[in-house]
Order: sequence, then C-alpha cells, then structure tokens
Amino acid sequence: MLSVDLNCDLGEGFGPYPLGDDVALMPYLSSVNIACGVHAGDPALMRQTVAAALAHGLAIGAHPGLPDRQGFGRRELAISPQEAYELTLYQVGALQAFVLAAGGRLHHVKPHGALYNMAARNRPLAQAIAQAVKDLDPSLRLYALAGGALLDEARALGLRGVSEVFVDRGYGADGHLLPRGTPGALLDDEEAAVAQLLSLVRDGGVQSSEGHWVGLQAQTVCLHGDGPHALPFARRCAEALSQAGIARRAPA
Amino acid sequence: MLSVDLNCDLGEGFGPYPLGDDVALMPYLSSVNIACGVHAGDPALMRQTVAAALAHGLAIGAHPGLPDRQGFGRRELAISPQEAYELTLYQVGALQAFVLAAGGRLHHVKPHGALYNMAARNRPLAQAIAQAVKDLDPSLRLYALAGGALLDEARALGLRGVSEVFVDRGYGADGHLLPRGTPGALLDDEEAAVAQLLSLVRDGGVQSSEGHWVGLQAQTVCLHGDGPHALPFARRCAEALSQAGIARRAPA
Amino acid sequence: MLSVDLNCDLGEGFGPYPLGDDVALMPYLSSVNIACGVHAGDPALMRQTVAAALAHGLAIGAHPGLPDRQGFGRRELAISPQEAYELTLYQVGALQAFVLAAGGRLHHVKPHGALYNMAARNRPLAQAIAQAVKDLDPSLRLYALAGGALLDEARALGLRGVSEVFVDRGYGADGHLLPRGTPGALLDDEEAAVAQLLSLVRDGGVQSSEGHWVGLQAQTVCLHGDGPHALPFARRCAEALSQAGIARRAPA
Amino acid sequence: MLSVDLNCDLGEGFGPYPLGDDVALMPYLSSVNIACGVHAGDPALMRQTVAAALAHGLAIGAHPGLPDRQGFGRRELAISPQEAYELTLYQVGALQAFVLAAGGRLHHVKPHGALYNMAARNRPLAQAIAQAVKDLDPSLRLYALAGGALLDEARALGLRGVSEVFVDRGYGADGHLLPRGTPGALLDDEEAAVAQLLSLVRDGGVQSSEGHWVGLQAQTVCLHGDGPHALPFARRCAEALSQAGIARRAPA
Repeated sequence: MLSVDLNCDLGEGFGPYPLGDDVALMPYLSSVNIACGVHAGDPALMRQTVAAALAHGLAIGAHPGLPDRQGFGRRELAISPQEAYELTLYQVGALQAFVLAAGGRLHHVKPHGALYNMAARNRPLAQAIAQAVKDLDPSLRLYALAGGALLDEARALGLRGVSEVFVDRGYGADGHLLPRGTPGALLDDEEAAVAQLLSLVRDGGVQSSEGHWVGLQAQTVCLHGDGPHALPFARRCAEALSQAGIARRAPA
Repeated sequence: MLSVDLNCDLGEGFGPYPLGDDVALMPYLSSVNIACGVHAGDPALMRQTVAAALAHGLAIGAHPGLPDRQGFGRRELAISPQEAYELTLYQVGALQAFVLAAGGRLHHVKPHGALYNMAARNRPLAQAIAQAVKDLDPSLRLYALAGGALLDEARALGLRGVSEVFVDRGYGADGHLLPRGTPGALLDDEEAAVAQLLSLVRDGGVQSSEGHWVGLQAQTVCLHGDGPHALPFARRCAEALSQAGIARRAPA
Repeated sequence: MLSVDLNCDLGEGFGPYPLGDDVALMPYLSSVNIACGVHAGDPALMRQTVAAALAHGLAIGAHPGLPDRQGFGRRELAISPQEAYELTLYQVGALQAFVLAAGGRLHHVKPHGALYNMAARNRPLAQAIAQAVKDLDPSLRLYALAGGALLDEARALGLRGVSEVFVDRGYGADGHLLPRGTPGALLDDEEAAVAQLLSLVRDGGVQSSEGHWVGLQAQTVCLHGDGPHALPFARRCAEALSQAGIARRAPA
Repeated sequence: MLSVDLNCDLGEGFGPYPLGDDVALMPYLSSVNIACGVHAGDPALMRQTVAAALAHGLAIGAHPGLPDRQGFGRRELAISPQEAYELTLYQVGALQAFVLAAGGRLHHVKPHGALYNMAARNRPLAQAIAQAVKDLDPSLRLYALAGGALLDEARALGLRGVSEVFVDRGYGADGHLLPRGTPGALLDDEEAAVAQLLSLVRDGGVQSSEGHWVGLQAQTVCLHGDGPHALPFARRCAEALSQAGIARRAPA
C-alpha cells in the first residue's frame, strides 16, 4: 500500500502568544516538527506540544531555527557551518529532553525557515547540520527539501534523509520552490493543492510553473499550521489520501 | 582513602565575552558545571567547554539558570514549580546533546545562582527541579546545597543528591550560608578557606560565624572560576587535598 | 463638565504574534500605553501603534516592563531601584523616539505588570521610576495605581501623577486591588463593571468586597485590550460615560 | 588650525561582562559611540558610559546594531529598509534618553558592525537609516564610511554626514576597506597606522594596498576600544595629532 507522511510545524507560539490551533490539527497528521525555543516556542510550550503529540501517536521531530524571534527565523543570518552545527545540536537536545521525559523517542529533525532554505542550497551549512544530527543520534531522520543540498548531505553521511515536498507552493522547472512573491509561488486554490498532493505521492512529481513535469521524491508533505484555512485544508488532505487508498504514516 | 569532588561553574561567557580562564582551571578540578545558554553561555561555548572538560577527564554537569542574562541569573524571578521543571529540562537537554555528540556522558546537574538559592529553601520548586532531572535520566546526580531543600527532594525522589559546600563562604549557626553583604560572608583569607576545606572534608563540618560547630556533608566543594585569584586558589586547594592524602574525585 | 481618561495597554504583540485588535479599540479610548520592546512589543509594532494612535488623536504613553518576554512582564524580578531607573529610562526613550519621529509628543508613562505592582508597594523602586521620568522630561505624566506608592512618589517629586483605577477588578477595604485568584478579584459581570466605572468617576469611590465605601481618585480608567470581550466592553464603557454626560479626555 | 575627530565604540559590554577599559580611553578621544542594548550594552552600562563621557567633555553618539548579541552584531541579517528604520529609531531614542537625563545632548549616530557595512553598500537600507535619524532630530550628525552609500544618503537628505576613516585598516584601490582576512586588511604595525592617520588628516588620502593614492575625506577617525593595545595606541594617535599641530575635536 502506498503511504506518505503528513507533517506540520507546531509549538511555534511563545509566552503569552498562541500560534495556530496545534491540537486540533493533530488528528490529520502523522508527524510534527516542534519549535525549540529559539526562533519560536519556549520550554512550557515544548512540554505541552510534546505531550499532545504523544497522545495522538504522532512521530515527533525537532524544528530548530535561527536566533531571531522577531523575524520568526525567516530572515537569513550569516552564520558559519560551525555555528549551524552548534545551533542544531543545542535545539535538538533541548527538544529531545522533553520527548524523553514524557516517555517518547525523538523521530526526526527538520530545520525551520531561513535555516531550512539556506541548508537547501549551501552545502557546507547543510553538511554541518547533518553532522550535528548524526553526532547526537545517527538513527534520527532528517527532513529536508526534495532536491536540496541538505537531503544530499544527510544521505552522504549515512543518515536517513526524508525528502519533503509542499502542496501549496509552486515549483519551478528545476524542481525548486518558486520564491514567495513570485507569481504562482502560492497555490491559493485548495483544489489545485490537493491535486498536487496526489500527483506528488502517486506520480512522483508536479507540473512546474512553466508546464514541464518535474520529478520529486515525496516522502513527507509539509502542511502549514497557521492561517484561517489551515485546519480545514489539513482535514481535506487527510481525506484525499484516504480516498485514494494512500496510508498516512511517518517514515519508519 | 578519603575523597572529595572539586567542582567549578564554567562556560559562563557569552558571544564576544569570555569569563574566567576555564581551561586553565581544569587540571585542579574533578567536575565542572557548564552553563546552558540561558543565564550565560551559548552553543559555541557549550561545545568548546564540553570538549575541554572531556579532554581533562572531568565529570560534566549541566548548570541551568534563570532566563536573565543581564542579571547573570542572580536576580530572583517568581517562577512556578512547573516553569522550574521546564527550564531545567530544556537546559539539561541542550547541554546533554553536546556531551553525547562529543562521545561523553552527562554526570550531574547543578542549578545556578538565584535558581540554586530558591531551590534550597522553596520545597515545591526543589521538587520540580528534581523531578525534571529524574524524568530525563534517573542516573543523573543532582548537586545541591548541603542542608537545603533541593538535596532533600532529590533524595526523596530516589536521585543521588550530592551535598555541596563552599570553602570561601561563611556559615551561620544553622548551617546556611551567610548572605553576601553580611560580615563574614566571604572568607577573603586563603589560609582560612583552605582550613575550612580540610575541616569540611575530614571532620564533616565548619565553625559557624558564631563559633559553634556545624555539621555539613561535604561530597562536593564549589570553587569559583572567575576573579583574579580563582586560578591560584584552585591550585592551592588541589594541593592541600593532595598533601592531606585526600583524593580528588567526582561522585561515582 | 466631569471628565475621565480611558486608557488601554496596546502594542503588546511581538514579531509574528498579534495581541488584541488595537486599532479597533482606539475609537473608545482617550489614551494608550504602548509596550516598549522589553516585556512585549518590538520596533515595528511600536512604529505602527504610535501612527495609529496619532491618527486617532489619542494621548500616547510609554508602557515599560520587566525584561521577561516569556512571562509577559508579569513575574516579579528582584531588580534594584537603580535597575528600575535604567529600565524605565531606556524604554521611555525608545518609545518617545517613535512618537517624535511621527510628529507627536509623548504624554505619559505607565509601568506594566509586575513592575507596576512592585512600584505600587515598594517605595524605593517607585521613587527610582518617578525620578527616571522626571530626569527625562518633567512635563510627562505618570499613571499609577490609585493609593499606591508610585503615585505618591511621583507627586512628591513634582510630577503630575495620574491616579488609575480599574473597572473590572474588585477592591479590598483598604482600597487595594484584590489579588487575582481571590474571590471577587475579577468583575465578570459587565453591568457591575459599568456601575463601578460610574461610581468611580462620579462618586469618587467603590464598594469594597467587604461592602464598605472606599474613596479612590479616578483620573484614568484602565480597560483591558485583549480577551474576546475587550472590544464590546470598551464600547460600552465609552457609551456609558457619554450617556452620563462625562467627557472622555486624557489629562491635560 | 587643522582638526579631526577621534571616535571610539564604547559601552559594548553586557551584564556581568566588561569589554575594554572605556574610561581609560576617554582622555584620548573627542567623541564616543555608545552601544544601545541591542547588539551589546544594556541600560546600566548606557547610563554609566554616558555619565563618564559627559564628565570627559566628549561628544556622544548612539551606536545602534543588529539584534544579535551572540554574534556581536557582526553577522549580516537580512533586514528590510523598514526594519532598519525601526531598529535605528528604537536604539537612538533609548540612548538619547540617557543623554538627556544626564543633562547632555546627543551629538551623532553611528551604526555598528554588519549594519554599518550593509549601509555602506545597500542604498535603500542607507536611506532608511538616514531617514530615521532625520525624523528624530535633523540636527544629529551621521557618522558613516568614507565613500559609502550611507554617507551619500545622509547628505542627500540634508543631514550632516561625517566621513569616517580607519587608521588600522588597509584600503583598496577603490577606496573601500579591504575585507578582514585579506592580506593587508589590518595594519598591525603601529608606526604605519600613525602614518596613515597623518596622511588621512593632512593629505586627505592613503596609499591603497596596490600602491595608488586614494583620496578619502577624513572628518572622523575610528579607534578600536578593545584588544590589549587599544589604550597605548589611542594615546599615541592623540599625541601624534598634537605634535603635528592638529586639533582633536568633534564635528561642530
């Protein structure tokens, strides 16, 4: 039976500020990436989100980001590979402690925002992040952009790299995400997004913005957790998979 | 053979700022408590300090503190026991990741500054900190003030509580540290401090400021790592132990 | 004509996180207290909130708080009077720059959360805060709890202290706010809160929780800006004042 | 009589961490740039450094930087011009409050580190920073790299741009600073640095690394405040100016 993982970035509130309705989304996911108190999140929210994810039987990942709360980790910061290694280790370790203390086991790591994007194209940075994950625990999976440098570097180091695709984002001919702000970068039409989901999982690719077929390995699909349509859209994706006979399952 | 542990708080610089000469002190210690990037320290310094401590064969502890860099974790902050639990878990997990990635094993936890002091007298806070350590790894030792609430709570939960004493601080009749600013709170005279060290280890107590004998369990002795005399004083303590035939050794 | 000021704490979001619907509340206020980027707020939100307040013709105050974003400035931190002076000056200066750059003039200062509460009962802290305001600009007003130490100290220094009351909080016999968590601390009934508003403004006092009359100088009334009922309740207060022939006006 | 300004970045410690010996340097300067609590500094240090600078009769500037304490504001962060405007206004306002409260008057603004460098080559960012300074107080001077975009934009807006040169850094043929790490980027030889100082002030230029003459407007000279040689080097520069009959004076 065909299967795919549906993941979502959660635990991205902070102190007095909620962000999204994490627990309501959980029934439609198979894995979660939990912010680690640097770009977003805090120890209280980490504990709560880990507990809810375990109660829903979800695979739990650490979601490390850049030290820029105001910019939500979305502004690029010129860090060295050494600093990327250290930032990753710090945050994954912190999140892992909450998972272990709650009786669970950390499943994967997925970098956030600008760190994710930089790691998709900057090979030394990607290598450093993958090395941090491997040095901590080589059985951890690393979620990374399909076709990006981080996925390559993870696999080159012997880690299980999990190829991630997006269902509400447009792809260029080269298989890279169209930058936000570009025409076609965001698929606002849910119908089109669901069709892209099924195309990615069943057919292993998408139509690029120029109309060419682009092959993409879709092992995990990122759903966005905030915004007014996040919850109904997640439900719809889960249902579409179910109707197509595709299992929703975190990478084993 | 009689033995005692000499510990010191290290890795308490931040970004461009060093604090103390950590590596120079290491030959005179048996264990270190490394700041976890909250009251002081950062991921780069954590990595470096862990590596140096492992190279010197020292037992490594996590040194979690309050989220107050400007106040160096020394100003009391009204946190709940739940928040103390979460702060502890977060920081110990982050430090542990650096230890594991470097091929070591975390040995203990020792709270810092105001968190240490609050935990010595606030029983619910102490209980929460001990529970966090136990939930993460019940084999971790917890260093805590001799005679304080944290030591009690750690032992009540079945953790190995390690009773900590100070050689350059004066004690009151009740066995508690004289508050800084009180006459006799600081033993400026190195001779007197070394004598107190030997008294604590060999005789199990000190003369209080009022001249009474106060019994104190001295399993680990805290040396201060900053200040102009930190290094020669640490050397002198190590030598005094050696001459007295007392082994310097972290708790097994 | 009788008049009173209706104030609200605004600009208390941060980075990706909104908090309350600031602009929708503005038509019902006469003054605002804008967070200064320490307990909440950031430079972007400060600029936006100042611009909106000026467009609505509101008197603008700085709303300095403790350096504790996770706790939203509500957890007490043991700062010295000197540190309170410095924290106040820093934050008021930062907010004032946005007001001046937008062509306005800063009207007042009102401390936030735990800083407000500590200043209401800790005289040296209150004195330091008032001194900071005076040293920066002695024409600034200082909003402070009716009957508290900060109001006294402000006036003792020759500042215009503005006595603040709360319409949705219960008062004890001594005129102090009942602590949150105490029975009667929160007036959940809007009818009762509006009645308390009119009693405070017209009659200069409230019925305490024990049923005694407590005289309170009500120069400004604090409305809360978040929560689902904040907006309709603010509208109702503004209407009740209007129907009672009481002008809504910031202190001249 | 020929004159030049000697400036230095001060107040760049944080909490428990000193950085450099600010007060010892002051006798050899004519102006100071004080960190504003974002890349470095804190309200306590701002107050102290302002007081010392006023006591030495120095012109005081605000030294705003990027929100990156760990990287000391030296790592580039992808901020928008709007964000640069807001960051500048916030920090200059905060520092100005300390100057006003101490009875002084803010003299200038000089961006720090990566913000300084980005503003020297990114015109929209430069324009935003200059606009923030102008909107706050158009009589403020803006210190900026000789030949850089910020100097141009400041002057285009009608601000008094002050052209800054470096005496211990090598220049390329185009008049830009050689990047750190390039051969010749740092003039380690004090003799050569002093010669460059006199060449810049008297002759209006330097020999580039390729041996060509590069004209540079030297209205202010940046001395570095940290490092073991900072103090004797500052003294030597002050003496060299004095012996050459050049007055040390902040821009009027």
